[in-house]
Amino acid sequence: MTIKNAFYAQSGGVTAVINASACGLIETARQQGGNIGKIYAGRNGIIGALTEDLIDTSQESDEAIAALRTTPSGAFGSCRYKLKSLEENQREYERLIEVFKAHDIGYFFYNGGGDSADTCHKISQLSEKMGFPIQAIHIPKTVDNDLPITDNCPGFGSVAKYIAVSTREASFDVASMCRTSTKVFVLEVMGRHAGWIAAAGGLAADAQHDLPILILFPEVTFDQAAFLAKVQEKVDQYGYCSVVVSEGVKGPDGNFLSDQGLRDAFGHAQLGGVAPVVANIVKNELGHKFHWAVADYLQRAARHVASKTDVEQAYALGKAAVEMALEGKSAIMPAILRTSDEPYAWEIGAADLADVANVEKMMPADFISEDGFGITEACRRYLEPLIQGEDYPPYVNGLPSYVTLKNVAVPKKLGTEFEL
Amino acid sequence: MTIKNAFYAQSGGVTAVINASACGLIETARQQGGNIGKIYAGRNGIIGALTEDLIDTSQESDEAIAALRTTPSGAFGSCRYKLKSLEENQREYERLIEVFKAHDIGYFFYNGGGDSADTCHKISQLSEKMGFPIQAIHIPKTVDNDLPITDNCPGFGSVAKYIAVSTREASFDVASMCRTSTKVFVLEVMGRHAGWIAAAGGLAADAQHDLPILILFPEVTFDQAAFLAKVQEKVDQYGYCSVVVSEGVKGPDGNFLSDQGLRDAFGHAQLGGVAPVVANIVKNELGHKFHWAVADYLQRAARHVASKTDVEQAYALGKAAVEMALEGKSAIMPAILRTSDEPYAWEIGAADLADVANVEKMMPADFISEDGFGITEACRRYLEPLIQGEDYPPYVNGLPSYVTLKNVAVPKKLGTEFEL
Repeated sequence: MTIKNAFYAQSGGVTAVINASACGLIETARQQGGNIGKIYAGRNGIIGALTEDLIDTSQESDEAIAALRTTPSGAFGSCRYKLKSLEENQREYERLIEVFKAHDIGYFFYNGGGDSADTCHKISQLSEKMGFPIQAIHIPKTVDNDLPITDNCPGFGSVAKYIAVSTREASFDVASMCRTSTKVFVLEVMGRHAGWIAAAGGLAADAQHDLPILILFPEVTFDQAAFLAKVQEKVDQYGYCSVVVSEGVKGPDGNFLSDQGLRDAFGHAQLGGVAPVVANIVKNELGHKFHWAVADYLQRAARHVASKTDVEQAYALGKAAVEMALEGKSAIMPAILRTSDEPYAWEIGAADLADVANVEKMMPADFISEDGFGITEACRRYLEPLIQGEDYPPYVNGLPSYVTLKNVAVPKKLGTEFEL
Repeated sequence: MTIKNAFYAQSGGVTAVINASACGLIETARQQGGNIGKIYAGRNGIIGALTEDLIDTSQESDEAIAALRTTPSGAFGSCRYKLKSLEENQREYERLIEVFKAHDIGYFFYNGGGDSADTCHKISQLSEKMGFPIQAIHIPKTVDNDLPITDNCPGFGSVAKYIAVSTREASFDVASMCRTSTKVFVLEVMGRHAGWIAAAGGLAADAQHDLPILILFPEVTFDQAAFLAKVQEKVDQYGYCSVVVSEGVKGPDGNFLSDQGLRDAFGHAQLGGVAPVVANIVKNELGHKFHWAVADYLQRAARHVASKTDVEQAYALGKAAVEMALEGKSAIMPAILRTSDEPYAWEIGAADLADVANVEKMMPADFISEDGFGITEACRRYLEPLIQGEDYPPYVNGLPSYVTLKNVAVPKKLGTEFEL
C-alpha cells in the first residue's frame, strides 16, 4: 500500500483558534508512524487545491507548528468560496481529482463552518461518484456556533469570552462616568443569523458583578418602545446601562436595523453599523449621552484573551481528525460531546457529514429571557463552560508573538492553469 | 497638631489603571504612622466634595483596596466638571472650604488630566488666597498622554498596548481573508487632539511581524489622494492593509472627517464615527472589500491586557502623592522621569503644578514618518517601554474578577445643599 499524502485547508471567516486545530492535526500526523505522508495545506483554502497552490507543511519546524496553537487567524490563508454541487460544476471536482492524483493525496481535511461541511461532504462522495478514493473529514470551526451535533464550534468560546470581558470592562467604565457624562454604552457584536455571540454579553453580569446589560438578539424583532422603556428602567436603577447588539437585529419591517439608508452631506450612500443606530435612537428619544463601539474582527482575532477550553477543544478536534483518518473513516466530523454541565466534561464523538451539511443550529428559544433582552439560566449553563480558563500567548517586547509560517509551495506537477 | 484627613477624587475619563493609583495612595496612607487620618473619596469626583457626598474608604477591607490594583474604571465614580477660577466662581471654593473644614480635611489628592491639574492648582492656592490651609497634590492620569513634564500619563500605556495588540490580531485576520474577501481593515481609536494612541497602532508591526499598517493622525490633515495611493501600494504588496485612524482626523476644510453630515432615510441627522467614513472612501474609490471597528471605551477599560509598566507607574504615583504630602509639599504633581530608554528605567520626580496646569503636551513632529502615515524610530523608542510586561487580573469563572467597593457615605455634617 502506498502512503498517501493529506490535504488540509482553512475555510471561511477565521478565528482565534482555527490554527490550534491545524496544530493538533499536523502534530498528530507528524507523530503517527508514517501511515499518512505529507500534509499539504491549501494556500487560501480550497482555492489552493483548485489552482494547485499547495503548501508543504513539512518545511515548517516543530517550533513553528507548535506556535500555531497560540496564533490567531488562518496561517495558510482562508477563502470564501463554495463549491457547487457535482451536477452543477463537475469541472471543479475533476480539477480537484486531477490535483489530488498528481500529489498522491488520499486524505482531505477541511476546517470550516456550515458551507465547508457541505463541501467536505461532496468531496467524500468523489470515491463513489467519480471513482477517486479519498477520505474526507471535516473539522468544525465557526464563531457563529451554528453547526449541529457538536456541543459548540471552536472559535465561538473565545469570541464569547472576549465579548463578556469587554462588556464587563466597558460597563465598569460607564458606571464611573454616568454622573455627568455617558449613561448608555452600545457594543455591536457579530452574529447575522443567530444570537450566540450577543448572548455572551450577558455573562458579563454575575453574582459578584451586578451590571445592567440589555441584549438585542437577531432572533427578537426590535421593539423600539419596549427597548427604550428597558433602557430608562436600567438608567433609573443603576444610573447607566450597557447594550450588546447583534449586527443581525431586524426591525418590524424585516430590514436590518443597521440599514438606515444613510447618506452623507453630498447624498452618497454610506454603510454604517447597528451600534450607532441604536445609540442615536437612545439619544434622540431619551436624551442620554452615549458611547458606542463596534468589535468587528477584534472579537474573533482576540487570541490574547482566548478561552482555554476553546483552545483545547480546537486542538483535540484537529488531532481527532487524523485519528479518524487512520481508522479509515470518511464523510465524518469529529464533534464535541458534552457529558456534564457542572463540572463541565466533554469528549470527542463523531458526526455523520450528511447530518451536518446544510443544517444550521439556532439558539434555543428558552435561552432568551421572556422580555427578550437577556439570557436565561439555561443559556448561562450552556455558555459558561465554554469561556473557562485562560491560555495566554507568549509575549515578546510587550506584545503577543504570533507565528508567520514560511508557507513554501509544493512544486507544481500539472502544466495547467485553472480559472476560478 | 491635629491629624488631618485627606480627600481623594478621580476626575475625567477613567482608565484601566486609575484605580491602581487609588490603591497605591490608600495602601500607603494606611501604612504610614497616622500622620494622615482617614481617606475620604469624593463620590463622582469633585462633585462629591461640593455636595458633601464623601466616601469613607476606611470601611473597605485591605483585600478590597488591594483589588483596586487590578480593577479598571473609577471605583469612586468620576465626573466631567471643571471648577472656574476663584474670581469667576468664589461660591464653589467657599463651599469646598466649608466641606473640608467640616470633615477636617487637610490634604487634597486629585487624580486626573489637564483640567484636573488646573483645578488642583487652584485648590492649592486656597491657603494663600482664602486662608484655608490645605496641601493639594495632583496625580496624573489620562489616556490622552498630554500632560507635560511626566514621561507619560498612567492609563496611556495600557491603551497603547490594547491598540497595538488589537491591530496586530486584526491584521493577521485580514491577511488570512484577503484572497477572496476583506482587503482593508480600519480601526478607529481615541485621541481627539493628539495622535499618541493612534501611534501605538504602529507597534503592531515589528521585525518579527511584517504587517502593512497605515496611521491617520490628527496632526496630519487628511489627504485623500495620498492616502488612497498608500492603501493601494500596501494592497499590491501584501494583499491587504490595516488602517488605524484617530477620531480627531480633520480634512482640508478643517472639519473632523467623522463629521459627514450623515442623515438617515428620513433626513434625521446621525452621529457616526470616522472608521466607517474612511472605509467608505476606500470602497468607493478603490473598490476593496473592507471591515471596520471602533474601539471606543473598550480600549481604555481593557484591564485584561494592561501594561505592567503602566500599572506599576500608576501605583507608584499614588504612593508618591502620599509621601509628598507627608513631606509637607503642595501645588505639586509626582511625575514619571525617564532615565533610560533601553533598558527602560524611570524614577518618580516632581512637577510644579504651575508648570502643568493648562499645558498640553503634543506629539513631537519627528514621531511621525515623513509620508505622514507611520511612526518613526524615535516614536518607537518612546512608546515601546510603556507597553512592556503583562499584569493579568485574577479570573473567576472564566472572566476577570473586578471589585466593586461598598462606598459607604461619611455622615453629613453640614445641613446645607449645594446646587451644581
